[in-house]
Amino acid sequence: MDEVRRHPERGYVILDVLHRRSLETLVAQLGIAGLTEADLDYLTRGWHRLHPWRDSVAGLTRLKSKYIISPLSNGNVALLTNMAKFAGLPWDLVMSAELFAHYKPDPETYLGAARLLGLTPGEVMMVAAHNNDLEAAQKNGLKTAFVARPTEYGPLQKRDFEATGAWDIVATDFAGIADRLGC
Amino acid sequence: MDEVRRHPERGYVILDVLHRRSLETLVAQLGIAGLTEADLDYLTRGWHRLHPWRDSVAGLTRLKSKYIISPLSNGNVALLTNMAKFAGLPWDLVMSAELFAHYKPDPETYLGAARLLGLTPGEVMMVAAHNNDLEAAQKNGLKTAFVARPTEYGPLQKRDFEATGAWDIVATDFAGIADRLGC
Repeated sequence: MDEVRRHPERGYVILDVLHRRSLETLVAQLGIAGLTEADLDYLTRGWHRLHPWRDSVAGLTRLKSKYIISPLSNGNVALLTNMAKFAGLPWDLVMSAELFAHYKPDPETYLGAARLLGLTPGEVMMVAAHNNDLEAAQKNGLKTAFVARPTEYGPLQKRDFEATGAWDIVATDFAGIADRLGC
Repeated sequence: MDEVRRHPERGYVILDVLHRRSLETLVAQLGIAGLTEADLDYLTRGWHRLHPWRDSVAGLTRLKSKYIISPLSNGNVALLTNMAKFAGLPWDLVMSAELFAHYKPDPETYLGAARLLGLTPGEVMMVAAHNNDLEAAQKNGLKTAFVARPTEYGPLQKRDFEATGAWDIVATDFAGIADRLGC
């Protein structure tokens, strides 16, 4: 993604394609033989079949009763749409870096999301488990909420164990955000 | 919309803005006085508060159990998102002409929808009450389904009382489409 951000003149490339390239690099590096095209495609699309955090569906359903809920992810639209179908995430719409041809944390993503919703940045809240995502959202005028996912990166996780900025909401899960927003 | 399609060099303008311009023209033509900015905005956003056809929510809910469902409308994203919240339309995502900076029936809209979904055009079905919309979708390789809405234009309706092309499905309501697609 950083490669795409550094070289906009090469054009935007969706995350599915970047995942596929990374996989091919790893397969070559590790000398793995015998993978078919179908295998590579299935592995690449593993991101389309992510299981949700245990609190996500219930918390999002509460938030949806009062607010418009959408991802604003670097995942492409198909990845996010298939993920939502697989996991039962009840998003109202799907906003993706792909729609703006810019990856986060480029301002075009945060400001583009507000524009698509017909709202000012201050009427939109970015919810994330990554402090750097919230930092960029806040710089662009959005409200911010942090939910720690301390096992997201597995045993090698080194950051994002806790909020490191002055976010509007800091919660331990999506139920906590729904509580704070009166849903 | 045709004005925007004829003059791409002037840039894309979302439907909310075109609705507002039409309203201002009408207000001037009819010599209506005393409307506040809030009044004009409320009237313009009437499209955000459309009531659904009686069969839509139940039919879409059935279709959603097996398929990804989305509008592909000339309405802008905020218009469609607010409409879905107001009417309870259970779309998985919201695709709009705005995302492609082209109004239907420009090919960019139909092909863009398939691209965002990571599908070939033939894996996508356009459902519409307007034969000209289906004609363009079919030309671009999409499957097509027609549902007549004979009262859509009110007493002055002159067309789209019935299917006028070789569409894949012709039904009287969304339940009929769900029946045909095995949902």
